[in-house]
Amino acid sequence: MLVFHVATTARSGMYNITADVRQALRRVLEEFPGARSGALALFCPHTTCGLTINEGADPHVCRDMVGFFDRLVPQDAAFTHAEGNSDAHIKCTLHGPSLLVLVEDGALQLGTWQAIYLCEGDGPRRRSVWAQWLPGPSGR
Amino acid sequence: MLVFHVATTARSGMYNITADVRQALRRVLEEFPGARSGALALFCPHTTCGLTINEGADPHVCRDMVGFFDRLVPQDAAFTHAEGNSDAHIKCTLHGPSLLVLVEDGALQLGTWQAIYLCEGDGPRRRSVWAQWLPGPSGR
Amino acid sequence: MLVFHVATTARSGMYNITADVRQALRRVLEEFPGARSGALALFCPHTTCGLTINEGADPHVCRDMVGFFDRLVPQDAAFTHAEGNSDAHIKCTLHGPSLLVLVEDGALQLGTWQAIYLCEGDGPRRRSVWAQWLPGPSGR
Repeated sequence: MLVFHVATTARSGMYNITADVRQALRRVLEEFPGARSGALALFCPHTTCGLTINEGADPHVCRDMVGFFDRLVPQDAAFTHAEGNSDAHIKCTLHGPSLLVLVEDGALQLGTWQAIYLCEGDGPRRRSVWAQWLPGPSGR
Repeated sequence: MLVFHVATTARSGMYNITADVRQALRRVLEEFPGARSGALALFCPHTTCGLTINEGADPHVCRDMVGFFDRLVPQDAAFTHAEGNSDAHIKCTLHGPSLLVLVEDGALQLGTWQAIYLCEGDGPRRRSVWAQWLPGPSGR
Repeated sequence: MLVFHVATTARSGMYNITADVRQALRRVLEEFPGARSGALALFCPHTTCGLTINEGADPHVCRDMVGFFDRLVPQDAAFTHAEGNSDAHIKCTLHGPSLLVLVEDGALQLGTWQAIYLCEGDGPRRRSVWAQWLPGPSGR
């Protein structure tokens, strides 16, 4: 299992971790030279941030998305959790903690416009992302 | 990795891709005759549509769901992304880009009422879905 | 593929299934003694409940989350599905039907505050959760 870290800089925001995921895949391929096709399972071990995949080209998309989720789940809603970050827990579940990205011939397979994001809901913090290689039909 | 396509016919809607996923599994089993149990990882390489699993029997469920998401994320909200489809990007993240379906004894395992859907947010378009076979404990 | 069951006690609520998932992993390790590292794919075969991972320490988080989703998707919205549970179908898709949890050296890998939940939307019912072992790079 591989681990990488993301330093978030605001209470809520989206952080492009595509390069980190590519680097994790390179480490898998170095350690298991036979690995070619399969999937990389990504897992976020936190409860106030999540993972998603969305457009990586125009930063306005992330801005619109973060703004939408901030309005959908306001911080000052009548929540009971004493830490005052129930909004971030809810966003975490809306985004989800786990993702699968496919790998073919040793290359991460993403659509033309896709980038992988960590969605911060209660930053700034130092976050971890875990990655596990799941071999495809060749069994490697 | 297998690819299949879906032709969507409206700006937003849910398209039942269960038969396409079963067909993808058949192609896996033909190519890897030892494959019996594991999971099929499904991945949507687009940023304005996603994947989900929900009821396949009564079409009113999909109608209610599409209507709900259209109201939750209106197209005319004050978004900044110039293409005018930020709503579709947000729905894409709410649905998610990746799904796992389990396979046992060569058969796709779904609950009685479940069907697999591509959730279009910015159609009509020709969409792709990618599928990767992840072998279970037998290693095949 | 392993199956375990959850008896839900109210129309909507979150049920901590972490212990059930650990038990499922123990059964995998007993049946496949070589299994060490990989992922457990969890799948919910229903269309009115889903799976998520969130805080397991303070029950106020779940209370806030269930309350939020109940307000976001009210039961009495103008839905057309005759069974009157379109809200539960929509929540099911918002939570998602499948999850991946990572396993390393035979141990379930969760963050400090994480617990795995079944999110009931149309209970009380007896629910099933399916689990499939996906071996990591060792191929076991």
